[in-house]
Amino acid sequence: MPQQSPLDLPPHDPFGPHNLPYGVFTPSDAPDLRRIGVRYGDHVLDAGAAAAAVGSPHAALLGQPTLNPLMAAGRPVWRAVREELRAWLTEPVHRPTIEPLLRPLTTVTLHLPFEVADYVDFYASEHHASNVGRIFRPDGEPLTPNWKHMPIGYHGRAGTVVVSGTPVVRPRGQLGAPTGRSTPGHSALPPFGPSLRLDFEAEVAFVVGTPSPFNTPVPLSGFHDHVFGVCLLNDWSARDIQSWEYRPLGPFLGKSFATSVAAWITPLDALAAARTAPPGRDVPLLPYLDDSAAEPGGLDLRIEVAVNGHPVSHPPFAAMYWTAVQQLAHMTVNGASLRTGDLFASGTVSGPEPHQRGCLLELTWSGRDPLRLPGGERTFLEDGDEVTLTAWAPGPDNSRVALGEVTGCVAPSTP
Amino acid sequence: MPQQSPLDLPPHDPFGPHNLPYGVFTPSDAPDLRRIGVRYGDHVLDAGAAAAAVGSPHAALLGQPTLNPLMAAGRPVWRAVREELRAWLTEPVHRPTIEPLLRPLTTVTLHLPFEVADYVDFYASEHHASNVGRIFRPDGEPLTPNWKHMPIGYHGRAGTVVVSGTPVVRPRGQLGAPTGRSTPGHSALPPFGPSLRLDFEAEVAFVVGTPSPFNTPVPLSGFHDHVFGVCLLNDWSARDIQSWEYRPLGPFLGKSFATSVAAWITPLDALAAARTAPPGRDVPLLPYLDDSAAEPGGLDLRIEVAVNGHPVSHPPFAAMYWTAVQQLAHMTVNGASLRTGDLFASGTVSGPEPHQRGCLLELTWSGRDPLRLPGGERTFLEDGDEVTLTAWAPGPDNSRVALGEVTGCVAPSTP
Repeated sequence: MPQQSPLDLPPHDPFGPHNLPYGVFTPSDAPDLRRIGVRYGDHVLDAGAAAAAVGSPHAALLGQPTLNPLMAAGRPVWRAVREELRAWLTEPVHRPTIEPLLRPLTTVTLHLPFEVADYVDFYASEHHASNVGRIFRPDGEPLTPNWKHMPIGYHGRAGTVVVSGTPVVRPRGQLGAPTGRSTPGHSALPPFGPSLRLDFEAEVAFVVGTPSPFNTPVPLSGFHDHVFGVCLLNDWSARDIQSWEYRPLGPFLGKSFATSVAAWITPLDALAAARTAPPGRDVPLLPYLDDSAAEPGGLDLRIEVAVNGHPVSHPPFAAMYWTAVQQLAHMTVNGASLRTGDLFASGTVSGPEPHQRGCLLELTWSGRDPLRLPGGERTFLEDGDEVTLTAWAPGPDNSRVALGEVTGCVAPSTP
Repeated sequence: MPQQSPLDLPPHDPFGPHNLPYGVFTPSDAPDLRRIGVRYGDHVLDAGAAAAAVGSPHAALLGQPTLNPLMAAGRPVWRAVREELRAWLTEPVHRPTIEPLLRPLTTVTLHLPFEVADYVDFYASEHHASNVGRIFRPDGEPLTPNWKHMPIGYHGRAGTVVVSGTPVVRPRGQLGAPTGRSTPGHSALPPFGPSLRLDFEAEVAFVVGTPSPFNTPVPLSGFHDHVFGVCLLNDWSARDIQSWEYRPLGPFLGKSFATSVAAWITPLDALAAARTAPPGRDVPLLPYLDDSAAEPGGLDLRIEVAVNGHPVSHPPFAAMYWTAVQQLAHMTVNGASLRTGDLFASGTVSGPEPHQRGCLLELTWSGRDPLRLPGGERTFLEDGDEVTLTAWAPGPDNSRVALGEVTGCVAPSTP
């Protein structure tokens, strides 16, 4: 049986010509190179080499070692490049040129595909925020009074965003208030050591392409001009560190040790068929956030979370109260500028059902109800555990569009 | 009377050969160039041109358009370059070469001197944190239970860090909870518009030079290997936006519209004579933060805050409870890596006395006690107000080391 060409994908391959996510790879035979790649089935197209071979006007942009210049080029260029890629991969005339430029995914190393500028993490699932509020502040209202009036968010650490596959070392830190007894002249110290409550958070992140100037808020209608694409994100969280440190200025070391993103950025245009209206709003919104007359800002992404290969949750991104469109408008309403490479994430995606919760804090109700896995029970993550997020969305003509997975293994703390 | 050489500074000029802060400038006669400059009195030395003229081995590093490569080069290089600069500016043999390379400050444009990687803001003054706690949470303890056990901090927006002199446009946003009455089918909206409580925060910031790898905490003793220098910072704050948004994830849009830093980065070595012990600690500290047996980590910087040229406060940096040395150790104890260009700030510097408070929120006690200025009373900043931070520290031989000023004027909100 002759070997099948990587250009001959099965019908409805979720990484087919309707998807075409971007990444950055190193070929096994050129370990010093970084090349822009486009995923096609289980192969990666060397996009720069293809553009050069075909004589594309975008050969310089696609010949870079990072996506940032392409991301900065703006929507008309993104559209044109996407059309070119689709033609190269599907039109017979290009076949002899393109086929040799496809490499099996198993033979390349994937990198963080862009330089992260600022990283913002939102808190946009009502189900997640309510559950966390009940767990962390059992005596108060689950949602703070501001929650339905604005997408709550905070800045995270851009320098510790890592690509899928990077091991995540269990962080050390202060794990809570001092518990020992203080005696005269001797006060108790907070417990310190490797986190005992290491968690994942299943999130969807958006990557800014086109920058915006200072003092020029991006309206809801500007989203598609500024946002280049979408990827899965795991916002690793040390719950013991987080709950002790977060008052009054928010999460810091409980999050900043690592944030994993997928190696593939899915263009917004690939998700056109997945656009959906968010849930109904319980209170009216200020004009800058009011999307009732706008294009639907939600995305029907079906996420699966697996621990050691065993599915533990199926969070529905369509259930998010706040959309990425609203988040971008909120993030800039005070005049803050956007830079190419800004990354903003949804916050944990949790649906209304228990099996739709996007983190162990909720799934085990802070450790009260352990998860049963084939390898044993889990309240929080153990060393060696591997967490993998995958997702798909409805594509054109009953197809599916897969997002690139984000996976990471917990490595033991190093003293 | 012959014109004095810019190399002949008055004795004890606070920008003399014991200081030598770094910046990046554009000469008026070459508007497309960016050059590393070193401030000397009221002049700036073109450091790259000087290095090239003298045949320094550091000519390439000093010939860059930003400080980042020099910052990344590490302490031995910083020391060697500083020695070279001192020699060029003070030894007669270099005079004919160096004198033509000094330009009056008034003839150059100053830029943000480095590319900011991550920006972290701490909350390290006990006086400030206590005052803010009393104002924002009058029914609770002023300090949260964690405050004396760790330096509380959060990540800010790196992309909106601007250089001294940049106008700061009054931000717009949600100014508080809905106040109107909700009727059936009609809920009240939060008030929205330009901030009515725009404030400054006088802070001291530290610039990371040498990066650190993942999962390798920087101990207290590593501070001088990683930190390149010091500058003044104004953490502009919209108090109405901040107090409505900050629960539970901390400050976001109330801060992210602009953060101003000085154009000059003072090398740590210039502040050797200013090192001082921090205040006594009220509780014992975990080993990674315990500086009782370490070199003194505080800095005796005397700050002045002026509004429209009128001094309104004199915050003493020596009174800070947490030192920058401890902040760096805390920021990395969870394994988070450092990058060249990371910027971390002290939080508002406030001393114990009312005239030592570093922001209007405290100085006017949230607007209750207006400040009297020559141009009229102030509770918070008005459009057109100019805020200027200056500071000096004890230098060698009874000299003073001045920090570069950070100044900014409030521009009206743009609809």
